[in-house]
Amino acid sequence: MKKRVYSAMRPTGELHIGHYFGAVKNWIKMQEEYDCFFAVADWHALTTNYDNPENIKEIRRQMVLSWLAAGLDVEKAPIFIQSHNLYTAELYLLLGMFTPVSWLERCPSYKDMINTLSHKDLSNYGFLGYPVLMTADIIMYLANLVPVGVDQVPHVELAREIVRRFNNFYGEIFVEPESMLTNVPKLPGLDGRKMSKSLNNTILLTEDADIIEKKIKTMITDTKRQRKTDAGDPNVCPVFDYHKVFSTDEERAKIIEGCTKAEIGCIECKKILINNVENFICPIREKKKVLDKEIQNIDEFLAPSQKKANDFAAILMEKVRKAIKI
Amino acid sequence: MKKRVYSAMRPTGELHIGHYFGAVKNWIKMQEEYDCFFAVADWHALTTNYDNPENIKEIRRQMVLSWLAAGLDVEKAPIFIQSHNLYTAELYLLLGMFTPVSWLERCPSYKDMINTLSHKDLSNYGFLGYPVLMTADIIMYLANLVPVGVDQVPHVELAREIVRRFNNFYGEIFVEPESMLTNVPKLPGLDGRKMSKSLNNTILLTEDADIIEKKIKTMITDTKRQRKTDAGDPNVCPVFDYHKVFSTDEERAKIIEGCTKAEIGCIECKKILINNVENFICPIREKKKVLDKEIQNIDEFLAPSQKKANDFAAILMEKVRKAIKI
Repeated sequence: MKKRVYSAMRPTGELHIGHYFGAVKNWIKMQEEYDCFFAVADWHALTTNYDNPENIKEIRRQMVLSWLAAGLDVEKAPIFIQSHNLYTAELYLLLGMFTPVSWLERCPSYKDMINTLSHKDLSNYGFLGYPVLMTADIIMYLANLVPVGVDQVPHVELAREIVRRFNNFYGEIFVEPESMLTNVPKLPGLDGRKMSKSLNNTILLTEDADIIEKKIKTMITDTKRQRKTDAGDPNVCPVFDYHKVFSTDEERAKIIEGCTKAEIGCIECKKILINNVENFICPIREKKKVLDKEIQNIDEFLAPSQKKANDFAAILMEKVRKAIKI
Repeated sequence: MKKRVYSAMRPTGELHIGHYFGAVKNWIKMQEEYDCFFAVADWHALTTNYDNPENIKEIRRQMVLSWLAAGLDVEKAPIFIQSHNLYTAELYLLLGMFTPVSWLERCPSYKDMINTLSHKDLSNYGFLGYPVLMTADIIMYLANLVPVGVDQVPHVELAREIVRRFNNFYGEIFVEPESMLTNVPKLPGLDGRKMSKSLNNTILLTEDADIIEKKIKTMITDTKRQRKTDAGDPNVCPVFDYHKVFSTDEERAKIIEGCTKAEIGCIECKKILINNVENFICPIREKKKVLDKEIQNIDEFLAPSQKKANDFAAILMEKVRKAIKI
């Protein structure tokens, strides 16, 4: 039997290429090999954006269209909306009853996030319970594997602890999920920092050709290379990180040679990249335009997927209630 | 238009006369005067009984049968099960997103309960969120009034603060509920302490006649009155507290006279009480026996009530989701 995979993404803005290479590309591969459930974690988006006037509902739609344009296929794995499955709220509530507050406070991501987003008041009950909700998401589908980045490993570890505590109190119902660390290429933001919407240093997965050109032209390079006649170091150049993802071995060999010997300038090097990024993005962008017209009502489009997820949850929650005798 | 009332009770054991005079008697009156919603707060029971093998489902049934036997009427006000309305879990989750943890930690009942039940580990996420869940319960029905004891006033105050924060962020949807302090007669336990199942000092609302007699016979009295020839003080006698609830003015006058003048003994005084308590309990006990046979499936019996509550919640939650744009 295929192992089950659960993964989700928060709809906090338009998808950028960091999302694609960090998660979606991997999902597209996994939908062929595993029994996958993919979710739009819109409730989780509220933990940090509770006071934000942004329209989560619309961002959610754009995100799913981008997923589909990139290659996810609801025939292969259901894609559903977290907030459209109320059983998840029920399980979150039930798991919270026996989850020690200390387990949540010691989660490294809790303090990290509060520090990172220090301009925002995150000391809310829902934010503290972020990992409880994530646990409910994962274990509801009896997922064996959760593809995550290193920073999310403690959340999956916590999910395992919550599962053990549940199974110990009420009987063996849930499966202990395991982290599945995925190999993610380094893809910094245009300014060399971490790619992030809030830093305004992203390239969108559906970026227009002229914006791609404009963005890459102003991208930071090896800051020590001031003139074309200076030799550059591709190892410290964000543009070269992009070449590692978007260019061929041959192109990269040529760039290393030209840059380190001061034979090609950054403009020329970037032209190659602009071309390659556009070639990668173009079919996704165009596909999304088509989907955007075809799929007027995303909830309707996802209805069969949502039903699969909700039906699975309904059966499981009956067992859970019986076990708790509630 | 009638004001709306929400009230609930946790199914933590069989109903005793303290529950009746503390809440149910008042509910029976309110169902005539207000637009009431009465709930069995079984999720709230889990906050303290999460590791308890007790069968909440069965206690829930017994509790509703006792309510009905005492005079609640589903035709006058819906009676429903908290855990059978998943919208409540959804609202609890959403409210948590913007409820500061500090508001919950400063709730006096939080530390009180942790101290009172110090033998139990209550430092769980769900217990911390007790007032958030209670808020979801109350405001879901746009209740104006919540009949509470003094100890619960801070919870209603917190519900008001959460409502203000919600309405401020997302628009005026919820109503600020108000505490409705009810006049509750003093009815101590058989040992003079607070009546409580865990202290094993209760008289059940459906107690058998012989047990009523046995329990009252061993009830504590004015401890300074050792013999019938000693004058007693009704003001410090728990039995007299009961006479205030169960006996007539005439009987009480006779007892005060007889006790303070050492003319009647405690046994005689208790005989009057035994008779009056049995006269009060007998019809409720017998009615419950009938209902217990008539109503095999309590969920089925409550289905129309549950539907009223859930339909109300469904409409409200559509507005809530629209306001949050989720």
